[in-house]
Amino acid sequence: MLSSKSTQSSLFIGGLDIGGTKMAAIVADRSGPLARVVEPTAKTGTEYAPAEQALRLLKDACAKAGVPFEELDTVGVSSCGPFIRQQGKIRLAAPNICGGIARRGELPNDWMSVPLEEVLRRHFVQVVIRNDCVAALTAERAFGNLQGVDDCAYVTWSTGIGFGLCVDGHLLHGKNGNAGHAGHMLMTDQSSAQCGCGNYGDVEALVSGYNLEARCDRPPAELFDAARAGDPQGRAVIAEAAKWFGRALFNVTAALDIERFVIGGAIWHHHGEWLEPMVMSELCTRLPALTNGVSLSSPGLDSLVTDIGALHLVMPEDWPNEWRARKPWQQLQES
Amino acid sequence: MLSSKSTQSSLFIGGLDIGGTKMAAIVADRSGPLARVVEPTAKTGTEYAPAEQALRLLKDACAKAGVPFEELDTVGVSSCGPFIRQQGKIRLAAPNICGGIARRGELPNDWMSVPLEEVLRRHFVQVVIRNDCVAALTAERAFGNLQGVDDCAYVTWSTGIGFGLCVDGHLLHGKNGNAGHAGHMLMTDQSSAQCGCGNYGDVEALVSGYNLEARCDRPPAELFDAARAGDPQGRAVIAEAAKWFGRALFNVTAALDIERFVIGGAIWHHHGEWLEPMVMSELCTRLPALTNGVSLSSPGLDSLVTDIGALHLVMPEDWPNEWRARKPWQQLQES
Repeated sequence: MLSSKSTQSSLFIGGLDIGGTKMAAIVADRSGPLARVVEPTAKTGTEYAPAEQALRLLKDACAKAGVPFEELDTVGVSSCGPFIRQQGKIRLAAPNICGGIARRGELPNDWMSVPLEEVLRRHFVQVVIRNDCVAALTAERAFGNLQGVDDCAYVTWSTGIGFGLCVDGHLLHGKNGNAGHAGHMLMTDQSSAQCGCGNYGDVEALVSGYNLEARCDRPPAELFDAARAGDPQGRAVIAEAAKWFGRALFNVTAALDIERFVIGGAIWHHHGEWLEPMVMSELCTRLPALTNGVSLSSPGLDSLVTDIGALHLVMPEDWPNEWRARKPWQQLQES
Repeated sequence: MLSSKSTQSSLFIGGLDIGGTKMAAIVADRSGPLARVVEPTAKTGTEYAPAEQALRLLKDACAKAGVPFEELDTVGVSSCGPFIRQQGKIRLAAPNICGGIARRGELPNDWMSVPLEEVLRRHFVQVVIRNDCVAALTAERAFGNLQGVDDCAYVTWSTGIGFGLCVDGHLLHGKNGNAGHAGHMLMTDQSSAQCGCGNYGDVEALVSGYNLEARCDRPPAELFDAARAGDPQGRAVIAEAAKWFGRALFNVTAALDIERFVIGGAIWHHHGEWLEPMVMSELCTRLPALTNGVSLSSPGLDSLVTDIGALHLVMPEDWPNEWRARKPWQQLQES
């Protein structure tokens, strides 16, 4: 959040949610989100394409909301990572977007990194860029199911696996803002499943939607439907994935003495209730001094958690109380 | 550190370093450490035995230093964990001390936990208890090789494996002060090596001195000597251990975006220089956005790092500058 002093002239704020699959832009004022637009993330052309797409989507969101684009001077960004810095400015070095560093080699570009901050700073006075799971975590701490929980994590189980981490009430950033890439923790040396980062047998390689699809040759939705209907092969694959995911949550709990995980992402959104006992049996049967009382929950902000997280990064400090009371994101969710 | 106001009457401070193998007590004044005594950690009798031993060792250290015990009212403790709380007071639930929770079952007691804080508070006005690796980390940040490094970790590779973690300049504690138990991160499901906590295939089970000895049926010192002399079986065991240790450092780097690790403990102390290339080849060949520039180092405080860490927890705030300039621990190291 920005202090109200520094942004008292901002009537509108923008939010960007940049993922490996889709990009969303959202415009809000004090009353709540006004409009949201979404598109598949640009992956062709020059390395400037994603940042230029971000600008265009913000313009589209402004047009949809009836807000003059030139009045928007403040943007919060929740983005997939990792980040690197060049001349002090954040660039995305995300293997899901940049073909030059993706070791799986199916992306239609050879980008090594995407100049995000450089482009946004040409157009906006205030730009705050955070890892998408860190932004989601701030939203859940402000408005959702992590209010008042000082030792907590946001986890996404979706196309990829990411974490936002908070210990002792302190959001973890790290030397380049890349804390939370625990989806790349190595879990076994006995797997041929490869992650976009090149690792074999990391959490993402073992459980992400992308990898489940690659290994089973059918979309995760089909795989889960079959497993839940009793298909033994599908059930074995999912049980294995739930095991690794539970072990990843245990590893993070052991390392950080976490109290509560909020889990988002498409896979948990659709199947979390069914997966939870399998995940908990790996997490809470170990090291009771650390795992006793650890709980899992879905995001209070539902599928808008990273969008609202992006807005929260740049929100004037007198807005959140009103938003907490009125929950204005619900309107957007229903529209 | 305590503010000078709260301890301006303390001429002397005590430090306790409680490990699964040995316990050390140290007494210091503004000029530096005055005396240190050490014994094998008590593991028989009632669950009060370790805390009573701690008191006795502090008395012995006072006697050795010519300090009246009754003038000691402030004690810092660096202890193996994990910790649990009963009536708000810290008890050690350490599988290396408490036979009732050790799943390997060779300890001569059935303690579930050790009432440490309760006993110490009966005798001292100020008691600060931290995980030993967290205390070591504060010492290295104050006096050693982590000065000015905001994203860093202290790791011990010894009988067990423990971490102290610092991100964005913030020391991580967690809901019960147990952050840093990353030695219990699960690394494989293909190992029969069991940790004292019950886990199979966690970092400690795979690489700790205790487990190397159990698996190879000879003390780590012999195993390392044989390996370094070219014994192929010994070399294979150590190469495997170095692989898992390097992967554990990678996992912590991925989760927390760490910049520098200081590695202590007997194994690294004696063999770190030889192990480092093997460890680095697992750490720095992955995910360059996170691992580029990550470095390893030995403790600047050498084998006294946890003792000085215990003292630093309760040190009046005007002492560290003097200690940094004069390095008074060197005298103790040489004595």
